[in-house]
Amino acid sequence: MAPHSYPSHVTIREVGLRDGLQSIATMVPTAAKCEWLRQAVAAGQTEIEVGSFVPPRLMPQLADTGEVLAFAKTLPGLRVSVLVPNLRGAERALEGDADLMILPLSASHAHSLANLRKTPDEVVAELARIRAARDASGRKTLIEGGVGTAFGCTLQGRVEPAEVLRLMQALLDAGADRVSLADTVGYADPASVGRLFEQALRIAGDRFCCGHFHDTRGLALANVHAALLLGVKRFDASLAGIGGCPHAPGASGNAATEDLAFMVEAMGIRTGLDLPALLALRTQVAGWIAGEPMHGALWRAGLPKTFQAVAEPG
Amino acid sequence: MAPHSYPSHVTIREVGLRDGLQSIATMVPTAAKCEWLRQAVAAGQTEIEVGSFVPPRLMPQLADTGEVLAFAKTLPGLRVSVLVPNLRGAERALEGDADLMILPLSASHAHSLANLRKTPDEVVAELARIRAARDASGRKTLIEGGVGTAFGCTLQGRVEPAEVLRLMQALLDAGADRVSLADTVGYADPASVGRLFEQALRIAGDRFCCGHFHDTRGLALANVHAALLLGVKRFDASLAGIGGCPHAPGASGNAATEDLAFMVEAMGIRTGLDLPALLALRTQVAGWIAGEPMHGALWRAGLPKTFQAVAEPG
Repeated sequence: MAPHSYPSHVTIREVGLRDGLQSIATMVPTAAKCEWLRQAVAAGQTEIEVGSFVPPRLMPQLADTGEVLAFAKTLPGLRVSVLVPNLRGAERALEGDADLMILPLSASHAHSLANLRKTPDEVVAELARIRAARDASGRKTLIEGGVGTAFGCTLQGRVEPAEVLRLMQALLDAGADRVSLADTVGYADPASVGRLFEQALRIAGDRFCCGHFHDTRGLALANVHAALLLGVKRFDASLAGIGGCPHAPGASGNAATEDLAFMVEAMGIRTGLDLPALLALRTQVAGWIAGEPMHGALWRAGLPKTFQAVAEPG
Repeated sequence: MAPHSYPSHVTIREVGLRDGLQSIATMVPTAAKCEWLRQAVAAGQTEIEVGSFVPPRLMPQLADTGEVLAFAKTLPGLRVSVLVPNLRGAERALEGDADLMILPLSASHAHSLANLRKTPDEVVAELARIRAARDASGRKTLIEGGVGTAFGCTLQGRVEPAEVLRLMQALLDAGADRVSLADTVGYADPASVGRLFEQALRIAGDRFCCGHFHDTRGLALANVHAALLLGVKRFDASLAGIGGCPHAPGASGNAATEDLAFMVEAMGIRTGLDLPALLALRTQVAGWIAGEPMHGALWRAGLPKTFQAVAEPG
């Protein structure tokens, strides 16, 4: 192992308001989402995925994404991401001047057809249309192609790494500014992360921007560690790991923001996050989603006596 | 990262019957402990710490360690470990013909005085006496010196790595056959594990035998991953992560055996364990310790559709 290969700083992109809330039944009021955003920014979060421009009848929890996006844009220093399932969603993200829009693509053909009613290559074609719309709009909104079920799929089972990498290249060729990989269902392990991310970095270089790990089987932080060793600097996470997995009732959702932040800060990698403030926000979110499962370990044990946040440079 | 540096096989030493049960109030009957051992061996476990020869008034849950050890010795292929706090405990382990006895030493002076009423160097002197007793007994019982609070301590805070390594060397010089490192209170992170284990391996070589991680703050498997990268081949774990932490109510105990086994098998590292059988045993143990917190993620989500246990060679 080469400790010196760890990055010096890591950005944790909060996805609790999107990936988290989309998976639970509780409707969080718009005002509470705005308060969440305000406190997250106060705790040092600089990148937040605030919602998804999917049809409200499919995901009523996120029907207020337009309003939440508008509020988020008023918060200084925040890079605001939004998920867009198609061109129509992208047009709304452009209208709202999102800083980043993420188009999800499922590398599992079975999952792609079941969830998006499109083949992965049809999603690539959609990205090209989104790129054209962005370029025509004059907006600076970045386009991220997010390749999901990158380590396997509960419907299809195995997903070939070669197919994942082919689709990633196709997204870049179609005009994605950046690409990311997601272990949507918790099938990844540190060895498979090491292998796939190494190849993804070879293909996409600096345009490979983010690892998105679900903690379904408890391996999210070990998988993050494998990616850190390759120099990956941005990870998605959800406060309290909220979100769950539709295929595993009661299972955790994304890596828990506060645990991930603790891990990397303890390793001497700067996140810019205020951990006690994140833990306080967690308590507040618990009230807004009362009764929904929350995960993570740090909130129970608290920070070690010896813990010191990594200082800002200079 | 160098995936090729992972070991080809890993042994998970079950400590649920000792570290797990000593930390919970429920008294598990001797017959249930024997049934646990029987099923654990049937699930492929080859090394189990069956109890601790501490005074029964201090730890009534483990008062039957002698009987459990005697039963464990009848199970074919099982290497039976037992914890011994001192020479008197070691004499009982020798009487019972344990395959291995573990003398814990706390690298935190404050913790050592509070828990063992001895300084760490007095524990080293005890190990020398235990070595003399073992050699005089004609038994083949191996002696492991286990250095705990190796990454920090809830009482003392910081524990100097140099002091951890000095004590490890002292245990070897005093006659320990092997040494191990324990993150007793969940203060380790993958970077500190990488640094300390690398130096421990340099000092002890093949006599460095085991990593013992608590999941108090959710980092146990990430820490195991950091140790795997250095070639460490043996880890302690407790079924369902039972055990907890006296300093963090409700927090997890050791790494969960079934999650750890899943991680390394998914990585292509052989454990020899039958994961469905371990999950079935977990359900049985849940009945014996009903009401006590159980942890881990795999039991909820189940094995991935694509999971295949690593085959025995040849």
